[in-house]
Amino acid sequence: MPRPAVRLHDTAGEDTALAEPPGDSRRFWLDAFSTVRAETERRTAPLSAEDQVVQSMPDASPTKWHRAHVTWFFEQFLLRPFAPAYLPFDERFAFLFNSYYVAAGPRHARPQRGLITRPGVAETTAYRAHVDAAVARLIETTNDFEAVRPIVEIGLHHEQQHQELLLTDILHAFAQNATHPVYDAEWQWPQGRPAAAATDTPVFGIQTIGHQGNSFSFDNERPAHQVLLQPVRVARGLVTNGEWLEFMAESGYTTPSLWLSNGWDEVQAQGYCAPGYWRHVDGAWFTMTLGGLRPVDPAQPVCHVSYYEADAFARWAGKHLPSEAEWEVAARAGALDDAFGMVWQWTRSAYSPYPGYVAEPGALGEYNGKFMINQMVLRGSSLATPAGHSRETYRNFFYPSARWQFSGLRLAEFER
Amino acid sequence: MPRPAVRLHDTAGEDTALAEPPGDSRRFWLDAFSTVRAETERRTAPLSAEDQVVQSMPDASPTKWHRAHVTWFFEQFLLRPFAPAYLPFDERFAFLFNSYYVAAGPRHARPQRGLITRPGVAETTAYRAHVDAAVARLIETTNDFEAVRPIVEIGLHHEQQHQELLLTDILHAFAQNATHPVYDAEWQWPQGRPAAAATDTPVFGIQTIGHQGNSFSFDNERPAHQVLLQPVRVARGLVTNGEWLEFMAESGYTTPSLWLSNGWDEVQAQGYCAPGYWRHVDGAWFTMTLGGLRPVDPAQPVCHVSYYEADAFARWAGKHLPSEAEWEVAARAGALDDAFGMVWQWTRSAYSPYPGYVAEPGALGEYNGKFMINQMVLRGSSLATPAGHSRETYRNFFYPSARWQFSGLRLAEFER
Amino acid sequence: MPRPAVRLHDTAGEDTALAEPPGDSRRFWLDAFSTVRAETERRTAPLSAEDQVVQSMPDASPTKWHRAHVTWFFEQFLLRPFAPAYLPFDERFAFLFNSYYVAAGPRHARPQRGLITRPGVAETTAYRAHVDAAVARLIETTNDFEAVRPIVEIGLHHEQQHQELLLTDILHAFAQNATHPVYDAEWQWPQGRPAAAATDTPVFGIQTIGHQGNSFSFDNERPAHQVLLQPVRVARGLVTNGEWLEFMAESGYTTPSLWLSNGWDEVQAQGYCAPGYWRHVDGAWFTMTLGGLRPVDPAQPVCHVSYYEADAFARWAGKHLPSEAEWEVAARAGALDDAFGMVWQWTRSAYSPYPGYVAEPGALGEYNGKFMINQMVLRGSSLATPAGHSRETYRNFFYPSARWQFSGLRLAEFER
Amino acid sequence: MPRPAVRLHDTAGEDTALAEPPGDSRRFWLDAFSTVRAETERRTAPLSAEDQVVQSMPDASPTKWHRAHVTWFFEQFLLRPFAPAYLPFDERFAFLFNSYYVAAGPRHARPQRGLITRPGVAETTAYRAHVDAAVARLIETTNDFEAVRPIVEIGLHHEQQHQELLLTDILHAFAQNATHPVYDAEWQWPQGRPAAAATDTPVFGIQTIGHQGNSFSFDNERPAHQVLLQPVRVARGLVTNGEWLEFMAESGYTTPSLWLSNGWDEVQAQGYCAPGYWRHVDGAWFTMTLGGLRPVDPAQPVCHVSYYEADAFARWAGKHLPSEAEWEVAARAGALDDAFGMVWQWTRSAYSPYPGYVAEPGALGEYNGKFMINQMVLRGSSLATPAGHSRETYRNFFYPSARWQFSGLRLAEFER
Repeated sequence: MPRPAVRLHDTAGEDTALAEPPGDSRRFWLDAFSTVRAETERRTAPLSAEDQVVQSMPDASPTKWHRAHVTWFFEQFLLRPFAPAYLPFDERFAFLFNSYYVAAGPRHARPQRGLITRPGVAETTAYRAHVDAAVARLIETTNDFEAVRPIVEIGLHHEQQHQELLLTDILHAFAQNATHPVYDAEWQWPQGRPAAAATDTPVFGIQTIGHQGNSFSFDNERPAHQVLLQPVRVARGLVTNGEWLEFMAESGYTTPSLWLSNGWDEVQAQGYCAPGYWRHVDGAWFTMTLGGLRPVDPAQPVCHVSYYEADAFARWAGKHLPSEAEWEVAARAGALDDAFGMVWQWTRSAYSPYPGYVAEPGALGEYNGKFMINQMVLRGSSLATPAGHSRETYRNFFYPSARWQFSGLRLAEFER
Repeated sequence: MPRPAVRLHDTAGEDTALAEPPGDSRRFWLDAFSTVRAETERRTAPLSAEDQVVQSMPDASPTKWHRAHVTWFFEQFLLRPFAPAYLPFDERFAFLFNSYYVAAGPRHARPQRGLITRPGVAETTAYRAHVDAAVARLIETTNDFEAVRPIVEIGLHHEQQHQELLLTDILHAFAQNATHPVYDAEWQWPQGRPAAAATDTPVFGIQTIGHQGNSFSFDNERPAHQVLLQPVRVARGLVTNGEWLEFMAESGYTTPSLWLSNGWDEVQAQGYCAPGYWRHVDGAWFTMTLGGLRPVDPAQPVCHVSYYEADAFARWAGKHLPSEAEWEVAARAGALDDAFGMVWQWTRSAYSPYPGYVAEPGALGEYNGKFMINQMVLRGSSLATPAGHSRETYRNFFYPSARWQFSGLRLAEFER
Repeated sequence: MPRPAVRLHDTAGEDTALAEPPGDSRRFWLDAFSTVRAETERRTAPLSAEDQVVQSMPDASPTKWHRAHVTWFFEQFLLRPFAPAYLPFDERFAFLFNSYYVAAGPRHARPQRGLITRPGVAETTAYRAHVDAAVARLIETTNDFEAVRPIVEIGLHHEQQHQELLLTDILHAFAQNATHPVYDAEWQWPQGRPAAAATDTPVFGIQTIGHQGNSFSFDNERPAHQVLLQPVRVARGLVTNGEWLEFMAESGYTTPSLWLSNGWDEVQAQGYCAPGYWRHVDGAWFTMTLGGLRPVDPAQPVCHVSYYEADAFARWAGKHLPSEAEWEVAARAGALDDAFGMVWQWTRSAYSPYPGYVAEPGALGEYNGKFMINQMVLRGSSLATPAGHSRETYRNFFYPSARWQFSGLRLAEFER
Repeated sequence: MPRPAVRLHDTAGEDTALAEPPGDSRRFWLDAFSTVRAETERRTAPLSAEDQVVQSMPDASPTKWHRAHVTWFFEQFLLRPFAPAYLPFDERFAFLFNSYYVAAGPRHARPQRGLITRPGVAETTAYRAHVDAAVARLIETTNDFEAVRPIVEIGLHHEQQHQELLLTDILHAFAQNATHPVYDAEWQWPQGRPAAAATDTPVFGIQTIGHQGNSFSFDNERPAHQVLLQPVRVARGLVTNGEWLEFMAESGYTTPSLWLSNGWDEVQAQGYCAPGYWRHVDGAWFTMTLGGLRPVDPAQPVCHVSYYEADAFARWAGKHLPSEAEWEVAARAGALDDAFGMVWQWTRSAYSPYPGYVAEPGALGEYNGKFMINQMVLRGSSLATPAGHSRETYRNFFYPSARWQFSGLRLAEFER
């Protein structure tokens, strides 16, 4: 069996995997395309055909669907407009593998993605190969490379996002199975990476946040703009399982005054008494991981907590979550341990457009803007984020009740 | 690819596949066990690993689950009590593959059977082989064959019931897929079989219904008892697609006075305007079958109609559905075309215990009795019913809204 | 405050309040109309305007709605067809107060009946008076009395049915209020009435059930027909609270093998551990009654149990519920204590058409037939049934989960 | 019938009804208490007992419940702690009329407030009088007036909030009734009030928002703090019905690209094609108002739109909604027509704590903080807001799907 493939990417801050250096641009993008596409397959390797077809909840998607959907993305936005001779692999796949692009036509209902047993794994692999070949040919031969390049680029970033979801979603599926399937028997938490900055400095005053320069960013990171911060100290360290066990021991899950009203409703309705995937077995806490069921390690960052839980923990600690601006400024200053590569970190910022935000034109404009409601921003990246996909301005977002991502937190405190 | 395997069983009335002849009883049951177990695998052969894992609605089950559950049934009720040296294949399977036997311990939630990606197909096949060997050994060597025999027998009838469900459930799954997967490209409706009796005779008076004699029956077919029938004429023929198209053309689906109140609610809520699996494509009606999407054939029996639809059709026709007693008496008299092997036939009888009904003792008592509420009886058998599993006293039962079975109807009319 | 008005009607079997004697037919029906209409108001008297407007669940209706709906029934089916000069009180009321007669036009959604604050109580009273006067005038002056008479008759029986529902529904509303409102402070259980027959006789053989003769019956009681009964002994006495407490003490509510599968689901989902309206207060059982919260009296019949509970109790007792035919034959033989006037008695019979059943023509045909699915028959009558509304052939019916009616049970046992 | 009572309060910006002048403080608060309490009764006067008891959806509350709940608030937070001799009117009311204060004990389920028929209107009035007398006595005689005064003050602001809800909730109830009940036959839209500032000035730069000084504010308006605004022009005028009709004419409700994803789901699920309470009758648009069903007036502000609709309209117009900070700065500059007293105005700001926010201690801390998730801020005030309750720093908040408030919008545009 092929070795599974989730190594921690080892770059804090912006890394360069997809940043084009001077020189042969077509060659660079051919390589990048090949590398990213291979990473998807590497992550799929430990999974059986059955593993790849299930959808364990409406918010998750089957592995096979991820593999086909990112392929459809290239077919829909790159090959159809720019490669006139391209023959689609199967016209019906546009219906099956469009996610939510209303402008791109009707699509299979999201909660029923797990019912698509056919095309099977083999046919999906063939679909990927068909599109891979066509994209490579296009990159090599197109007369309009300047128009093609940004679509390739966003397509690869899009695929990287799905690489992370592929892992979060299969972990959720495995967590429903009483036999505790193992994705990678050798999986371990990544080694922690201390912050670059030596001193512990509060952030404050007029600061610029958002993406600047010509390197890739999603539209939701732009425009860069100034904000005014009250003096605040963002914790260097992530909240750990050990600290979370204290919160639990001090009745954190049964004290309504610690909770947002909607959060308390959720705790009551779902019977939550510990983070997602924790199991109490014979008096000890275990947690479902990519390595199967493992004892909870008090030294590691807490993971799979919802915004509601993160917020309640902060209130219990007498602190609060940082805003996304506070987080970004502190991260840029190198003041945060494990800003990247461990767990996504909930901020107290609702996911909203930056002042002057303009969505991409056309169907790609549905990528980010239409989700800017009812969700909270997470910053950083996680152990499941592929190399080259982390940056300080990156805005991840989920509903406050979501727990199946690799989501944790760090605290903040205003200066008095 | 192995040839798929759904031939019409060609016996009207009781057939003998599982009826033990005089002679070597152990040999007979060894053969029967082997034959029935093989039929399950034969029905599975056309299905990919992905096909076998999905559950397309809570009432359906994955193919793999059917294969494992019927195996668990032998493990639970036969091997554990009677084969002291038996080592279970995997102790965790009792949790995964118990269906609803409360007395047999806790079990995986029914609506989540489609999430069990592991054990996979190969392991499930190994599980079946493990149990097959142990059962064969038990039959050959047990000192208590008289106690073992009835458990083997009920286990085989149980497996045959799941053989039919395996097909109804995979057809439902395929019907959710816009690419219309084909189970068996050569599938055809069975040849119709006219009734034995020459004349068209009403049934009436004191009649005995229910199972008599020593041959196998489920507890719900017993005790045989007398009933008093008003003179009634049960139609020789099944209602056809052609007749159903007339019902549709005469506003059957939009005339509330034809419908039971709950049925009308269902029609409105689901937007029903045709039988289950019918698709209107470019002005013509097609239907999803085991052979893929096929044009509706007016000469064939209507199939995949709910009780509500069957009842509304009967009211539109100025007639009614037969009661189960009327059906049984007419079938025994040989007065019905295609009583067996085509479609199950809704009766107007609610599924209730016969007078003096006693459930089996122990966990097997959960087999039938606890479902005797809110369901309607269907009689006969369908094209998906395995050979040797049809008989005149057989009581099938489903909720009145169910459409995914091979369910049709014939009409009846009281003598005036 | 006017004295509330729920005396036990004191007639076992058929009583004659609405049975027309020889003589002045118009006079008789004028009196009957006046008497029945007054009984509705008498039952309303203890209720405030606020009490009359609430709907505490979709299956219940507000008192004011009952009062207006039965009035609309006369307006719709009697005055509009037969009194050409009649001016409707308010044309909009046909929309507000039609219950489920699809043929009579669109109507206000059932679950929102409690939102109709206007017309208010005073206007509803005026509506009743308006229709009362018009009906009286019609009875006195119509040239087509033979056509009018049966509509008056069914309208009064219809109103009597709603008189009972008025009480069951307001009791349900009061039971939601933590202050335990009292409908009638002097309310008591009626005095029990022993059976007429001296000996304890099983019923069996060919028997006729269903309504015969010219007196009033609903269409669902017809046609009378013969049935064949296995020898069975129907208990003389109703099951009491004391017996139910034993069932509870012997883990009745926590033993799944006693329950129908759907019943067990209901017990689990609702957390049932005692009959409807029972409250455990400081170690003792109380129950919400028309007289407010009262201690449970072990000698009285158990009340407010669902079919599922009744069936589980019977299984626990090693017996079963009688069929409706068994009940009717035993009641006609005078072999049952408290057959009427105490609690409705669940039977094991699903509510189905009798052989040869024909619904009334026109919109009145929606009265009974369209509900003949998914419900169980109750026989007898209850303390809330108005005088003159009980008879041996009467078929009441509710869903097996219903608990808000005055529903109890008696047991039966087959002869061996 | 008493004249109904909803005049437009006629003060733009902060008015002084509850702002204490120098002099006899006890006298001032006695008067203020009496005035505010009387306003609640004035708003109740047009309503019948039935009107006062209904709850037309879980988010709305019955009039009677509002009247009793605000009274309980004084009993719970003022009389119980500070008036040792006070005898509660009825101990059970604490259960019935606590809204959501977990720290104040268990309470009646919110969605079932409409089932509390008792206490009735008369008893509720007596309850109010009982508490009124006790509060007046306390104000006059307490030795600890400094502690009492802020509770009286917040209690009155709390009651004023419910005065507005009382109207929004009864309008929702009336809108469910096909007879279109009228709250006040003489109701009219208030006269518009042009902005004070003559010139049309963008806002930008470092600005202070939030409440300053000693006058009353809710905790969510504090602390005042600086923000940095990008140059933006906030429209002087509210969006009108006429403009909304254009949006509708240009397919606003059927163009998915204009909508947030959740908003589009809502439009589809609910079938929205116009603002809340609009009815299309014989080719013209009408809307349900406090004055009953009225033709839509193109010159008046659009009302009863959700955040989703407001946001879609802004996108259609090529603009956006102002942030709450932009709104507050523009309002303070006197640059907005009808900032107050017409309709609440959706902003694009999620409802979050201001930097350094600290909730009130004790149960009163549940007032605002625990709702700071999933809701959007509205600014200004509406025609239903009582006099003295409007101010520039006031933060109202509702879920983005809410339509039953008097909610409209104005647009904004960034300077280029």
